[in-house]
Amino acid sequence: MRIVYEPCQMQKIASKYRAWGKTIGFIPTMGYLHEGHISLIKQAKKDNDVVFVSIFVNPTQFAPNEDLDKYPRDIKRDEEMLTKEGVDFLFYPTVENMYSDNFQTYVTVDNLTKVLEGASRPTHFRGVTTVVNKLFNITKPNKAYFGKKDAQQLIVIKRMVEDLNIDVEIIGMPIVREKDGLAMSSRNKYLNEKERKDAICLYKSLQKAKELIDNGIKDTQAVKKEMENVINAYSIPKIDYININSLTTLKELEEIKKGDTLISLAVFVGKTRLIDNLWI
Amino acid sequence: MRIVYEPCQMQKIASKYRAWGKTIGFIPTMGYLHEGHISLIKQAKKDNDVVFVSIFVNPTQFAPNEDLDKYPRDIKRDEEMLTKEGVDFLFYPTVENMYSDNFQTYVTVDNLTKVLEGASRPTHFRGVTTVVNKLFNITKPNKAYFGKKDAQQLIVIKRMVEDLNIDVEIIGMPIVREKDGLAMSSRNKYLNEKERKDAICLYKSLQKAKELIDNGIKDTQAVKKEMENVINAYSIPKIDYININSLTTLKELEEIKKGDTLISLAVFVGKTRLIDNLWI
Repeated sequence: MRIVYEPCQMQKIASKYRAWGKTIGFIPTMGYLHEGHISLIKQAKKDNDVVFVSIFVNPTQFAPNEDLDKYPRDIKRDEEMLTKEGVDFLFYPTVENMYSDNFQTYVTVDNLTKVLEGASRPTHFRGVTTVVNKLFNITKPNKAYFGKKDAQQLIVIKRMVEDLNIDVEIIGMPIVREKDGLAMSSRNKYLNEKERKDAICLYKSLQKAKELIDNGIKDTQAVKKEMENVINAYSIPKIDYININSLTTLKELEEIKKGDTLISLAVFVGKTRLIDNLWI
Repeated sequence: MRIVYEPCQMQKIASKYRAWGKTIGFIPTMGYLHEGHISLIKQAKKDNDVVFVSIFVNPTQFAPNEDLDKYPRDIKRDEEMLTKEGVDFLFYPTVENMYSDNFQTYVTVDNLTKVLEGASRPTHFRGVTTVVNKLFNITKPNKAYFGKKDAQQLIVIKRMVEDLNIDVEIIGMPIVREKDGLAMSSRNKYLNEKERKDAICLYKSLQKAKELIDNGIKDTQAVKKEMENVINAYSIPKIDYININSLTTLKELEEIKKGDTLISLAVFVGKTRLIDNLWI
């Protein structure tokens, strides 16, 4: 695996592969890789001639009060994992290489970013869409892979790609879970032993929602109430939000609509904020 | 010349040419072509294997009080001019094909768009950068050509391209003028005979500025004062602004700096707002 630090060098390499008629699969990450990332890479390996992965902890998607500085990093371990998976290029730029002193251009998706994670983190998605736009221009992928765990991110990026006519296919991949059901996340590292046990509440509440819906319940208020009950039975977790929205517009639903429903939640487990979701 | 209406079809054609190793030159226009546009096309023909021109009167860069509806159009004449120049593809999309009902993604350049034209037209540049970003994704040019007459537009687009790592070279081309010095513009069509005569005041005031600077004057207030005097000697024209700014930051200058000075002005000649500028 070759590691590339400079955006212009990465772009030249991408251009060469495109000129040779090779297809490029791309997975943007913030590093500290886990099985969720690996599942994206395995799919990209199947679908494309070459696979590029980026590791960049993007400062513009963190608010000042968030965990930018303590976001977990372990580049050596990441490199080993990527090499083992047969990734061709790791793009690993510095903040200075991505954002010049005179940087002032932003890509914004309006409506879809006002709710859910966007309501709790008002500048988050502007940072995400801007850096993903830059990364697409640098790595020129045919296909790019995102996990469904960051459901709103995936929906927002698909919107950006369609609105700006970006010539890339966005592939959403299923959430990968620990044995007990906790969704894989680099932030799980923050949890102590007791918190780790209680963190299962997110998955348990989504299982409860699925059970209710499978039994014919359509009223979203009733589903949310039961999910709250599941979580409130645990001692540590505190609910940030539980929402049931249309997958296409992200507007809140009164009734479950099969094929167009996203059930999502954010929960503080101690100081760590975890998210999870279910696509119905 | 082939005319293409659908963004996805234009994008497929662009991809084919890129895959064949051909270089693409692109000129985005709002139609009603004049010698200024033709000079861009001639340069693009010299520099590239194929030349794409777009004609799209972009609604998102007009404010509600501006001249979107009466913006001059003559597609048959434009087609003839483009054919004569040997343009390979005309991209001529509808508004509906460029902006879906659910459209909500914008590209914004922050600081550079707060002054000059951006101060008079606060939503203008967001519309320009968004549509140019879309057009670049659709036409995949190696080089794109813009006139220096829209000086701030050229500077803002260069900033967007650098900030978002867009792989296109932006070429700024000199202002083309009528015999008496009036800068070519589709909006000149709005002028009646008396207004057309007085419209020369913009160029005359820039000539005065050049004369003063050639004679060693560095004080920008003095230069602006003399330019005002030139314009105020005409009966119809009313100054909107006269500004002297850094070409790189667009901050106002107290002293002329050779190689980094933009003298620009906007003047109402009757109801028609004209702009012109000089790069020192």
